Amino acid sequence: MKNTIGNNITVTLFGESHGEAIGCVIDGIAPGISVDEDFIASQMEKRKGINSISTPRCEADKVKILSGVFEGKTTGTPICLMIENGNTKSKDYAATRYLARPGHADYTAECKYHGFQDFRGGGHFSGRLTAPLVAAGAIAISALRSKGVYIGTHISRCADISDREFGNISEDIGLLDTLDMPVLCEEKRKEMLSFIESVKAEGDSIGGILSTAVIGMPEGVGEPWFDTVEGMLSHALFSIPAVKGIEFGKGFEIAEMKGSQANDAFTVSGRKIVTTTNNNGGINGGITNGMPLTFNLAVKPTPSIFKKQNTVDMKTKEAAELEIKGRHDPAIIHRARVVVDSVTALVLCDLLATRFGTDYLGCD
Amino acid sequence: MKNTIGNNITVTLFGESHGEAIGCVIDGIAPGISVDEDFIASQMEKRKGINSISTPRCEADKVKILSGVFEGKTTGTPICLMIENGNTKSKDYAATRYLARPGHADYTAECKYHGFQDFRGGGHFSGRLTAPLVAAGAIAISALRSKGVYIGTHISRCADISDREFGNISEDIGLLDTLDMPVLCEEKRKEMLSFIESVKAEGDSIGGILSTAVIGMPEGVGEPWFDTVEGMLSHALFSIPAVKGIEFGKGFEIAEMKGSQANDAFTVSGRKIVTTTNNNGGINGGITNGMPLTFNLAVKPTPSIFKKQNTVDMKTKEAAELEIKGRHDPAIIHRARVVVDSVTALVLCDLLATRFGTDYLGCD
Amino acid sequence: MKNTIGNNITVTLFGESHGEAIGCVIDGIAPGISVDEDFIASQMEKRKGINSISTPRCEADKVKILSGVFEGKTTGTPICLMIENGNTKSKDYAATRYLARPGHADYTAECKYHGFQDFRGGGHFSGRLTAPLVAAGAIAISALRSKGVYIGTHISRCADISDREFGNISEDIGLLDTLDMPVLCEEKRKEMLSFIESVKAEGDSIGGILSTAVIGMPEGVGEPWFDTVEGMLSHALFSIPAVKGIEFGKGFEIAEMKGSQANDAFTVSGRKIVTTTNNNGGINGGITNGMPLTFNLAVKPTPSIFKKQNTVDMKTKEAAELEIKGRHDPAIIHRARVVVDSVTALVLCDLLATRFGTDYLGCD
Amino acid sequence: MKNTIGNNITVTLFGESHGEAIGCVIDGIAPGISVDEDFIASQMEKRKGINSISTPRCEADKVKILSGVFEGKTTGTPICLMIENGNTKSKDYAATRYLARPGHADYTAECKYHGFQDFRGGGHFSGRLTAPLVAAGAIAISALRSKGVYIGTHISRCADISDREFGNISEDIGLLDTLDMPVLCEEKRKEMLSFIESVKAEGDSIGGILSTAVIGMPEGVGEPWFDTVEGMLSHALFSIPAVKGIEFGKGFEIAEMKGSQANDAFTVSGRKIVTTTNNNGGINGGITNGMPLTFNLAVKPTPSIFKKQNTVDMKTKEAAELEIKGRHDPAIIHRARVVVDSVTALVLCDLLATRFGTDYLGCD
Repeated sequence: MKNTIGNNITVTLFGESHGEAIGCVIDGIAPGISVDEDFIASQMEKRKGINSISTPRCEADKVKILSGVFEGKTTGTPICLMIENGNTKSKDYAATRYLARPGHADYTAECKYHGFQDFRGGGHFSGRLTAPLVAAGAIAISALRSKGVYIGTHISRCADISDREFGNISEDIGLLDTLDMPVLCEEKRKEMLSFIESVKAEGDSIGGILSTAVIGMPEGVGEPWFDTVEGMLSHALFSIPAVKGIEFGKGFEIAEMKGSQANDAFTVSGRKIVTTTNNNGGINGGITNGMPLTFNLAVKPTPSIFKKQNTVDMKTKEAAELEIKGRHDPAIIHRARVVVDSVTALVLCDLLATRFGTDYLGCD
Repeated sequence: MKNTIGNNITVTLFGESHGEAIGCVIDGIAPGISVDEDFIASQMEKRKGINSISTPRCEADKVKILSGVFEGKTTGTPICLMIENGNTKSKDYAATRYLARPGHADYTAECKYHGFQDFRGGGHFSGRLTAPLVAAGAIAISALRSKGVYIGTHISRCADISDREFGNISEDIGLLDTLDMPVLCEEKRKEMLSFIESVKAEGDSIGGILSTAVIGMPEGVGEPWFDTVEGMLSHALFSIPAVKGIEFGKGFEIAEMKGSQANDAFTVSGRKIVTTTNNNGGINGGITNGMPLTFNLAVKPTPSIFKKQNTVDMKTKEAAELEIKGRHDPAIIHRARVVVDSVTALVLCDLLATRFGTDYLGCD
Repeated sequence: MKNTIGNNITVTLFGESHGEAIGCVIDGIAPGISVDEDFIASQMEKRKGINSISTPRCEADKVKILSGVFEGKTTGTPICLMIENGNTKSKDYAATRYLARPGHADYTAECKYHGFQDFRGGGHFSGRLTAPLVAAGAIAISALRSKGVYIGTHISRCADISDREFGNISEDIGLLDTLDMPVLCEEKRKEMLSFIESVKAEGDSIGGILSTAVIGMPEGVGEPWFDTVEGMLSHALFSIPAVKGIEFGKGFEIAEMKGSQANDAFTVSGRKIVTTTNNNGGINGGITNGMPLTFNLAVKPTPSIFKKQNTVDMKTKEAAELEIKGRHDPAIIHRARVVVDSVTALVLCDLLATRFGTDYLGCD
Repeated sequence: MKNTIGNNITVTLFGESHGEAIGCVIDGIAPGISVDEDFIASQMEKRKGINSISTPRCEADKVKILSGVFEGKTTGTPICLMIENGNTKSKDYAATRYLARPGHADYTAECKYHGFQDFRGGGHFSGRLTAPLVAAGAIAISALRSKGVYIGTHISRCADISDREFGNISEDIGLLDTLDMPVLCEEKRKEMLSFIESVKAEGDSIGGILSTAVIGMPEGVGEPWFDTVEGMLSHALFSIPAVKGIEFGKGFEIAEMKGSQANDAFTVSGRKIVTTTNNNGGINGGITNGMPLTFNLAVKPTPSIFKKQNTVDMKTKEAAELEIKGRHDPAIIHRARVVVDSVTALVLCDLLATRFGTDYLGCD
């Protein structure tokens, strides 16, 4: 299905970094969901990052709603969100057109699209394409909140600096909503920020680990094979550029536990069956068990660095040196977290619509 | 799409542990692929594990090909593979019917299927369902080999015992094909085996990390968004019971590197563009770059242990204690690796059929 | 998606006429639907036709339920239905292997499968593959009936003999259930039967028109574009071998009406909005309006006839004459009607599951 | 999949008649296909119809290509086509908001979208949504032509006036390309035109039958079950508003033939196997046989007429009278034919991409 994801709620992504516009179409979302353009704008703002460690294009990133919203609510028909590319006065790409940037998709794009791809600024592969995902995600996040489902993501690790773990998840999600630099512990937040500034000064870049928690998901959602909650989320989340790993619950750590430690014992809390630990991250057999969903994502360092790199001229097949210039981010983890929340929200909406029908998230 | 996976080559899985039969339907596979029933049988044998640390059911696990193969070759029409459940003389499940086993899907199954699920032996959630995946995978592995694509998986870590990394991948895959306990280093193999035996003696269980390498994949396969190679593989691989994490290339480790270390520089080898390192695991921008695909999977300990566990009676919602009896595996990592190879092969076949058309893997 | 149809409830078909077995997998159907094996058997019996004008294979056509049904009810997991091919002692096909039978798929199969197809008895293209669809359909029909949705199909025309139109649809469906020769008017039924017997005597064959009505479908089901009710039904119904046309409501006749005649005026009956006529066959803008769904199917004459025909040897590409021998039906319309009911039921179940969620047809 | 159609080449449609914009996203189309904006414009022009019998909105209908085309060629990434809605100064819809127009989707939209739909001018159900399909189809038609595949559609019947049948299909397609009123016989063309003018004068409307032929399709394309060529085409073509029937080859007429008449005998022409007749419309067993694809569509009269009609107020559930005012078409068959060509082209591109891989229609 290429640039479309989802079963009952689908998102189709389009656009290139330096083309006319980027955007997406969300289909299958229930009628009657309130669409708050201010909330969309605030999520877009979060994606832009922090001045001292981000160098975003001076784009307005104004989201235009072309369809599917009427009198402030979703109609139930496809929602097309469009962001015009303003700031695309192309520098001359001719000089470096065939120099494959290490860590980027220039070479694989050349293989797949045989030179017909729009290569300017990464084209369709650009991280800029996450902007419409954030806009779409804002609608999904609103829909989920109206059903009591909340999502939050923090930077749990950057180089050797670790944030504290989620505590009271509901409160922590509230805190994260107020932060540009999504680190729970204030001190660690400052440490990470200044570390990233130092990486920037070197002309280098750094990645990190993002940790996400979701509360309020009803139990019994997901499938035992293939369309497991893990499978559906990972399928979508690996689209976020730079994500190279995902683990649910204790993830790679659980692989070293014994069964007697790893198993989450059941108990009763109120009238509800819960588990005393949550090593499985809220999922048993691919299906939600009503506990918080938790997962971590490995985000690699942004491949654009200012240091000289070895590469190849794809046309002549000769060795070459490459020095990237212009605007680049020393880190994207703090910007990526809102993309993670957004993609997660879209997948969860899809799973809920599959489980409970077309109208579930909306009016009905 | 529930129990079906794939875009152009699909696998649909059916069956319950104690029902009539388990099996799958593979559709979209090219006509003219040789189907070697001995190879299927040998893969099934690998899945059964090792006597001292596995307690598989005494099932013949004879794979019957119901359709789609004619005179030893695929016809291009759906292949139904069926394995009859022989050894299902049900013990009395009544006593424990409503006691949710920790770490298992009993509770989530009850939520999703409202008590109508076949609960005997894990039903549709049983690891036994991986048997038809291995049978299907055997056909996919054969098809890939005829195109020069080879897959191998070893246990890179179990508790604190680590295997050596892949060296000469082609030779290592050859070695792994001969092993029941898929550990590259002979000494570590013995260590892991005896460690698992000791875990078994405790009535406990252990997981581990599986590392996979694929060589020979052509470049330019996969999509930039959503149907990325990472997304397609992870979607399928999380179906393997007990898998809780996946990382490509350096994965979580790359998250701690700087860009200048993480980027894989391009160079020319012969007439081919290659990278000097492979931190990105053969994938840039979601698309194969012609380097080996590499990924690791976190496999949790088998949830069935003989120690007493706390749980809940799902019907009465009262606390209960559970002591599991019968046959159980102290580890499944050595058995899971052939499932990993199989699922990987099926996904790669699908990606190739999407890229190069219906006939690519077969006669054409 | 090749041999799979449906969005939320899918059917995957497998098998060849002279292979081990034929069957299908139904996935996504709600847990808790009663499965009545006697009803399945009675539907299978209807598909076998009438002695004087049908020459079915002496197959037991015993449907084995391999999975997905437990204690008489659907579990919610995939249902695999299998019918073993007993009566396949293959005559020698060698003589006619490369003689493409006119009106059959021998030539197109050769083009698509490059000679690897199982050519015996039509292989995967055989009308025999409709048997598992009827078995699957029986489960779907039961599920629909529990929701008040009923389907009936009669032969409205055969050569120049026309049946009366549906009158009281509910009663007519009841009548059709009791008939082997599904013609509403008793006199016309006899005429058609004796006409088909005369065609049989000539060694020729005949088709006809099947007319279907569905009552009880809730309004608001279907999509405005692409997954319209018409699009979903036609997609599936054209799989029934020999179907070459479909029209909804007045169909080709409406094309000759004026708007003032064709439009179905709205009125109120009880508290329900209904239309005074039903020229649009219960569908406006692709979506059900609560009126009976009605459509007609054009069924071509069975291509197997005993008269000498001109053809080509596909291997030598030389002209040849072909005389088909063996068992063949002079007409299949009376047998096809139960296939039409079955496929219709499966599509409607899918549409309802999409609209109202996974549990709608079952327990919830 | 709601507003998306296709397996490997997909089209996702968005927009409402009086919203910001309408458009679509085409995904999966090969890189390197020339995109001729003049040809797109000329197809859009054909869709607008003929002054004397069409009253299109005075829309510029300028197609903006937002993505997926670079330096005049497809890039291989999603193509978003957008048409801004200029002429939407909404008249006051309040008076008739709840009066369901007979033959339209007002009532079914109310059922499905619970009143949240954009009801102005038909909203998402408007025939105006076919404009982006025509734009997308223009790219598909160009791609097919470069592979020797040509499509043409004429009005074969309007009321009791019949056009001649296709003769030399290639020449007839050439002729149709030059016509605003797509009738092969000049005399009949005038007759139909003046008949439609007379219907317009009455304030009524009329439908008709469209007949399509496709030449140059390679043999062996399509699937035996479900994704048959008939199933794939009908699924998509029933989306065209007003289409209520489809028949392939002789269609409903073949239902009255005997097998000896209906079967298309094979013969050899040059080195190619062909049939001497084409009663099956180029398809056997769901798969192309290399002969021209032929099918007919029943198009109902446009439901908007100026005569007084009986209806219901959906809110009060009381009987009401409705007199539609404003601009309306007395017929759309002459406009619909370019939509039919476009949708057909998109489906055939999808089938070819599935069969021959991603690159087939483009550069490779």
